[in-house]
Amino acid sequence: MPASPIRKLVPYAESAKRQGKVVYHLNIGQPDIETPQVVWDTLRGYDEKVLEYSLSEGNLSYRKGLAAYYQEHGIPVDENDILITTGGSEALLFTINSCMDPGDEVIIPEPFYANYNGFAQSAGVKVRSVTSFIENGFALPMIEDFEPLITERTKAIMICNPANPTGYLYSQEELEQLRDLVRRHDLFLIADEVYREFTYDGEKPFSVLNLMGMEDNVIMIDSVSKRYSMCGARIGAMITKNKEVRDTAIKFAQARLSPPTLAQVAGEAALKTPQSYFDAVISEYVQRRDILVEGLNSITGVRCPKPKGAFYCMAELPVDDAERFCQWMLEEFEYEGCTVMMAPAAGFYKNVEFGRRQVRVAYVLNTDALKHAVECLREGLKQYPGLLATGVQDQASVIGNQAED
Amino acid sequence: MPASPIRKLVPYAESAKRQGKVVYHLNIGQPDIETPQVVWDTLRGYDEKVLEYSLSEGNLSYRKGLAAYYQEHGIPVDENDILITTGGSEALLFTINSCMDPGDEVIIPEPFYANYNGFAQSAGVKVRSVTSFIENGFALPMIEDFEPLITERTKAIMICNPANPTGYLYSQEELEQLRDLVRRHDLFLIADEVYREFTYDGEKPFSVLNLMGMEDNVIMIDSVSKRYSMCGARIGAMITKNKEVRDTAIKFAQARLSPPTLAQVAGEAALKTPQSYFDAVISEYVQRRDILVEGLNSITGVRCPKPKGAFYCMAELPVDDAERFCQWMLEEFEYEGCTVMMAPAAGFYKNVEFGRRQVRVAYVLNTDALKHAVECLREGLKQYPGLLATGVQDQASVIGNQAED
Repeated sequence: MPASPIRKLVPYAESAKRQGKVVYHLNIGQPDIETPQVVWDTLRGYDEKVLEYSLSEGNLSYRKGLAAYYQEHGIPVDENDILITTGGSEALLFTINSCMDPGDEVIIPEPFYANYNGFAQSAGVKVRSVTSFIENGFALPMIEDFEPLITERTKAIMICNPANPTGYLYSQEELEQLRDLVRRHDLFLIADEVYREFTYDGEKPFSVLNLMGMEDNVIMIDSVSKRYSMCGARIGAMITKNKEVRDTAIKFAQARLSPPTLAQVAGEAALKTPQSYFDAVISEYVQRRDILVEGLNSITGVRCPKPKGAFYCMAELPVDDAERFCQWMLEEFEYEGCTVMMAPAAGFYKNVEFGRRQVRVAYVLNTDALKHAVECLREGLKQYPGLLATGVQDQASVIGNQAED
Repeated sequence: MPASPIRKLVPYAESAKRQGKVVYHLNIGQPDIETPQVVWDTLRGYDEKVLEYSLSEGNLSYRKGLAAYYQEHGIPVDENDILITTGGSEALLFTINSCMDPGDEVIIPEPFYANYNGFAQSAGVKVRSVTSFIENGFALPMIEDFEPLITERTKAIMICNPANPTGYLYSQEELEQLRDLVRRHDLFLIADEVYREFTYDGEKPFSVLNLMGMEDNVIMIDSVSKRYSMCGARIGAMITKNKEVRDTAIKFAQARLSPPTLAQVAGEAALKTPQSYFDAVISEYVQRRDILVEGLNSITGVRCPKPKGAFYCMAELPVDDAERFCQWMLEEFEYEGCTVMMAPAAGFYKNVEFGRRQVRVAYVLNTDALKHAVECLREGLKQYPGLLATGVQDQASVIGNQAED
């Protein structure tokens, strides 16, 4: 089992905090956005005497409510297509275990959410990756790049849309290319769509459940974590029209008994969140994205494409090794009492060399914190001993500037 | 993945309820005991703005509180030995995945909690079983019966104490026999102790964590579900002094991000539950056990040992096939508008024939409901077409009686 690249620096962060440093957590998708008030009100009014198990597949009333939510978003599912899970994580685990046997393979465009690796590995499934590149903002790789990886053991192609860690939003056209590929080889298309609500600049997400003519080949992963800023609930969903896959997944669901009860109550309440909440959140994320991406690109040697969705971006830094740099930022560095924690990108790649100099940065802090975090990173790059050549020149000139102040 | 024997009759129960029948759920360990008031009060007072992820290993304050609870119970662990999990289920899954590789084997006395099978199977681990028998109340099988099953692939022996599904409470002497066996072959001893609080007739549970001289070989599984009647929380714990096992388990924990946040708050609050709560609960369970076990044994052809712990018993019924009987009770039978749902025991055995005529019965309903459930079962056995010979005779005589009423 590989260690999570998002969480493995946590001990260094804990140690930095014990030393009194403020750590800006840009490493994890834990938004600081408030959970909708309707969730808190519902929980406070929850009046039961026994905190009971729910059905293994999740409360019926919640599944019905969730189906109505999808229908409002033009996605044709009903409550029987939905299995409520303990976070999107468990939905992924059930999906992989239900669609694949040990020794099977899944193809995922990289960089990809690092835990896909862990879930696949624990199911004995091999991940093969097709690389996408920072140069075109991590768009879908050419379909021709997928073809050579498809063997008789290939069971599925998996994507995240809008994507963690890149923020890339797949177009309908790209998804239809994937559909044709998947159809040609009779594979599953698994789409993690937990960031659906977070698309910017007028763009709309296109769900794999809206791809025509392949209902039995599609599994969609969802979660309340990001949508309602309630990551701690641990409520997700696995959605498919394929009855055989669903029946298998329900056996896994029965083995773990049920998803958390209180959190399902919270999830069902969250369905009543007014549109005004999302409008405010989207507008806030656009501001944050712009501050972060413009800030990062203003640092010499850093490049960062502007994402259309989710709340992550991938930045390339002028450093020898991003993991070493991230650890150094926590252990050795501080700027005005602060430092920045980021997720080294190598863990998001199978071909780790492509991620050697990249980090994933989440814009889940308020704009003031983000501005200071960018300055903190700028200073960190000036002082980091492993800076690459262009950066070193920049550092020298800036040190000169400081001396003049 | 095998279907859960506890839950696979659920569709028949749902259907019975739609027909207007009252179904006495003796099939599942969902107590009707009230969750402690301190839990509800704490949840109502929970005042955060964002429902955040917790640490992957669980909140530090909760782990410290839990360590103090164990210390009060004479079990020497600290917060670093504890990994908080999403229910005891996840603790079992992490334990199996952390101690064993695909192809390895675990030995479990049968009958055993059916989901052990599912968790082992999803990890590619083979379960081998040593049969315990109703004749001596499902005591630990002879150590000589374990020895022949131990191969180079055997990694662990797993027990549940007090036991689900039998209610058997292992003595210190039995546990020391297991300790010697485990030491001789350098295995892990995994003990599911989630029913620790539920022991009767003055008996006290003995934790594997109190076995001397094998700290690195022991893993204990725990959960808040039964102790505080909060099964829906989905909070458990994996406890071990073995650092290597713990470090591996934490990688699995990181992949699923964190256990549910609200439920951890509930679990921490539950630690303040006063002893008077447990005293009342134990006294209630003793009453229930006595009503159920005496009631069952009063039915001709039924036998049921009196358990010393947990809130289950295993009963042998005079029927051709307990699963068929349980389904028939839901589909075809009613008595005064009611029927009874039980868990067919075959699913608790690897050697399913030993469980063919047995059911697991949980005494998680109040005494009036239990009395009526016993009468309902008595009537069901009179009418069931697949009754065995002794039962058939009994049925005939009782039908005669009914005609006289």
